[in-house]
Amino acid sequence: MRVDEKARRTGSEVTLDMSPEEFRQWGHRTIDWLADYLASPESYRVLSQVHPGMVRDALPAAPPSDPEPMEAVFQDLDRIILPGITHWNHPDFYAYFSSTASGPGILGELLTAGFNVNAMLWKTSPAATELEEMVLDWLRQMIGLPEEFRGVVYDTASVSTFHALVAARGSVRDWDVREKGLSGPDAPRLRLYTSVQAHSSVEKAAIAMGLGRQGVSKIVVDDQYRMNPYALEAAIESDRAGGWTPFAVVATVGTTSTTSLDPVPAIADISARHGLWLHVDAAYAGAAAMLPERQDVRAGCDRADSYVVNPHKWMFTPVDFSALYCRRPEALKAAFSLVPAYLSTPEGDTVTNFMDYGIQLGRRFRALKLWMVIRYFGVEGLRARIREHIRLAGLFRSWVRDDPAFDLAAPTPFSTVCFRLKGTDADNRDLLGRINASGKAFLSHTELDGRYTLRFTVGNVRTTEEHVRRAWELIQSLA
Amino acid sequence: MRVDEKARRTGSEVTLDMSPEEFRQWGHRTIDWLADYLASPESYRVLSQVHPGMVRDALPAAPPSDPEPMEAVFQDLDRIILPGITHWNHPDFYAYFSSTASGPGILGELLTAGFNVNAMLWKTSPAATELEEMVLDWLRQMIGLPEEFRGVVYDTASVSTFHALVAARGSVRDWDVREKGLSGPDAPRLRLYTSVQAHSSVEKAAIAMGLGRQGVSKIVVDDQYRMNPYALEAAIESDRAGGWTPFAVVATVGTTSTTSLDPVPAIADISARHGLWLHVDAAYAGAAAMLPERQDVRAGCDRADSYVVNPHKWMFTPVDFSALYCRRPEALKAAFSLVPAYLSTPEGDTVTNFMDYGIQLGRRFRALKLWMVIRYFGVEGLRARIREHIRLAGLFRSWVRDDPAFDLAAPTPFSTVCFRLKGTDADNRDLLGRINASGKAFLSHTELDGRYTLRFTVGNVRTTEEHVRRAWELIQSLA
Repeated sequence: MRVDEKARRTGSEVTLDMSPEEFRQWGHRTIDWLADYLASPESYRVLSQVHPGMVRDALPAAPPSDPEPMEAVFQDLDRIILPGITHWNHPDFYAYFSSTASGPGILGELLTAGFNVNAMLWKTSPAATELEEMVLDWLRQMIGLPEEFRGVVYDTASVSTFHALVAARGSVRDWDVREKGLSGPDAPRLRLYTSVQAHSSVEKAAIAMGLGRQGVSKIVVDDQYRMNPYALEAAIESDRAGGWTPFAVVATVGTTSTTSLDPVPAIADISARHGLWLHVDAAYAGAAAMLPERQDVRAGCDRADSYVVNPHKWMFTPVDFSALYCRRPEALKAAFSLVPAYLSTPEGDTVTNFMDYGIQLGRRFRALKLWMVIRYFGVEGLRARIREHIRLAGLFRSWVRDDPAFDLAAPTPFSTVCFRLKGTDADNRDLLGRINASGKAFLSHTELDGRYTLRFTVGNVRTTEEHVRRAWELIQSLA
Repeated sequence: MRVDEKARRTGSEVTLDMSPEEFRQWGHRTIDWLADYLASPESYRVLSQVHPGMVRDALPAAPPSDPEPMEAVFQDLDRIILPGITHWNHPDFYAYFSSTASGPGILGELLTAGFNVNAMLWKTSPAATELEEMVLDWLRQMIGLPEEFRGVVYDTASVSTFHALVAARGSVRDWDVREKGLSGPDAPRLRLYTSVQAHSSVEKAAIAMGLGRQGVSKIVVDDQYRMNPYALEAAIESDRAGGWTPFAVVATVGTTSTTSLDPVPAIADISARHGLWLHVDAAYAGAAAMLPERQDVRAGCDRADSYVVNPHKWMFTPVDFSALYCRRPEALKAAFSLVPAYLSTPEGDTVTNFMDYGIQLGRRFRALKLWMVIRYFGVEGLRARIREHIRLAGLFRSWVRDDPAFDLAAPTPFSTVCFRLKGTDADNRDLLGRINASGKAFLSHTELDGRYTLRFTVGNVRTTEEHVRRAWELIQSLA
């Protein structure tokens, strides 16, 4: 580093940022580094093979007092960080819900970081608020929600569901929970309903919002892991007779374990009959609602009070981006709006101030990346990719079905296949360990009917039929 | 667009991502666009001057069916988005808490988007978890918190404070709130304490977690806007006598309106005496705890149970990045951990799985950007910049003091000056409107003792003495 450059950076002369020219230089370097990385994800082992503490031990225990050259940072990126990365960009990442940051999405994030606006108020960047409104309306049209639904972006589906349930809680009649909270001799004992296959975020939301685990009633599922609506209605009626105040139902379109679809139309009937808020968790499978041939994914969702879908799961948008739609966004605002004097604005109700719709005051300009993803691929391009993933999962499923050493463990409504090696839980656990240790594919597991089950999910935009075929051959060879 | 390229992108042939070469091309273009933008922020009006709906009306009402050329996206960036941006990067942004994305921070975000890892579990990218642990320990050392404090990154201070208070709630004895919630005849009526000058996020957290607004007792402040500890203790004792269960105190180091410091040592004494959880909100001013000459910023914070500081506020790190430190992180884990079968891992307690410490399951690899910021500037470089901002605010304060047309409205412990034009609230509102409409500077306001008050805060890494001087001349000329 030149002496004058060091002086500038330590502030003994001036105290500014990296100069625009230096930013340009290192920006190009970073883009080249990433382009090389994205060109050859397969040169890495999918699941990081480092041992606990290896990354930490390679880092200095104390921060540097003086500036370090950017060159040193890039060296450490290769030397320390890369070996500790589990490559979500790898086409052989088949674990959890495989997701990818597409090129246009990454460039959208770069612009977001560069603008660095806090979109808490309309005036703190009108483009951030209005693009968010518009792009979420595009997405609403794509997945077929009715016109009255309004969207808001949060970071994750867990946070979207939390906000939906707090809005639901605030809609309970005859009790001002915002003012009085949940305690006190006259307070209702609130309970919400979801299936035993629902995502853990529903229970986490109930804990955080003060309902406790007892505030969640978990409804049984049928043999295809779908909520049993008769059991739902029976639980509501029994609870009401027992002094509980039922207030919300969470249905899932694409559960985490098997991607099963709860019977939303029947659940919507029951919710309407009992005056309960219906929240639909379509975080993963909502993307498939874009397909005209998959009207089953939309069924009943038009009758929900709130609906969450995550473009960062199966729409090639970098994490984080979760879209929550509410039929009555004013319920969300009534639950969360709290405007201190220092944030009051003269625009009033003529504009949306998204800080009114959630816990977070600070909000990134996240709409840019989804806007770029939709424009780059086009709706038809996105549909084609989701169709292809469903086709690839269907292929994989057929290979499992035809191999006598394996059993299918659940239906495959989307791009996730649940299966088992014939044998014990330990056999399956061992097999998964060998697959993942190979570095050539990364699968995850779940538990179905008390049994250890392997999960294979296709969601990476770089995964081809050849990848899936090789992964299956690997699994067979290690079985 | 070439026909074969369009075929690839619509998926009629294959269904992949933007190619690495196309990513490289558009990545360089994006970097150049941003470098040009960052080289000339002053060519823009700070506060966007668009009218409500202008951005929305310029966008198509429906998403494109077919792919669009990236060139069109860049044209719209210039034509539609830029006019709707309020330029947080502008050196004359003096509103709220002025914050900036420095060059190394932006490049860190670019890498984060490229890796696109979900750092929910250690194994889903060990480097993300271990770099987060290490960089937060660096920051802990920099701001002087004791060794036993462990950090976790959330998006915003509002979410950090919410998590701290849920952990505090879970630490109340003789009531299993996680299991039973807050309702029922035997449930305690919980109350927390904070000053009338505390951030609105404290009350928002109380509402969300089921305490209601009645669950927050707002303690009066002295003539320098600092919590009155005698009033705090009196409120606790009176509430306890009245059947409430006090459980937490939130002290603020750097309030939002005036950046006043609550007397944390006295509040820590009271919290200890009554067995209450002490949370310190140092979201903005915690950065100043890095300065050896500002031990006042650290006083008493070593006795907190939790402490939040936001590198995205005054440490040149792009939004979002909020660091929550807990003395007993196991309290956070006890409140939030919920591990479904599909996320169980064999590593057990030998590693940190950050999903156990919060609502969010999805977590970006945020540590990269702070790591790059600290390494690029060095601790001394960061200190120099914070010192310079405090110096510039001191200069501005002296000019206000020496101008008989203006009054100072509060002390200036950091880089925020509260002041008023002598006259009515309407005069001050008008003056602020004229300043902001000029596009040459952007200030915000607050209310102090019922009076409309102007706020001028220095926090942008590109702000120099010349900028501050010109801004003051502008204010004088418009007064």
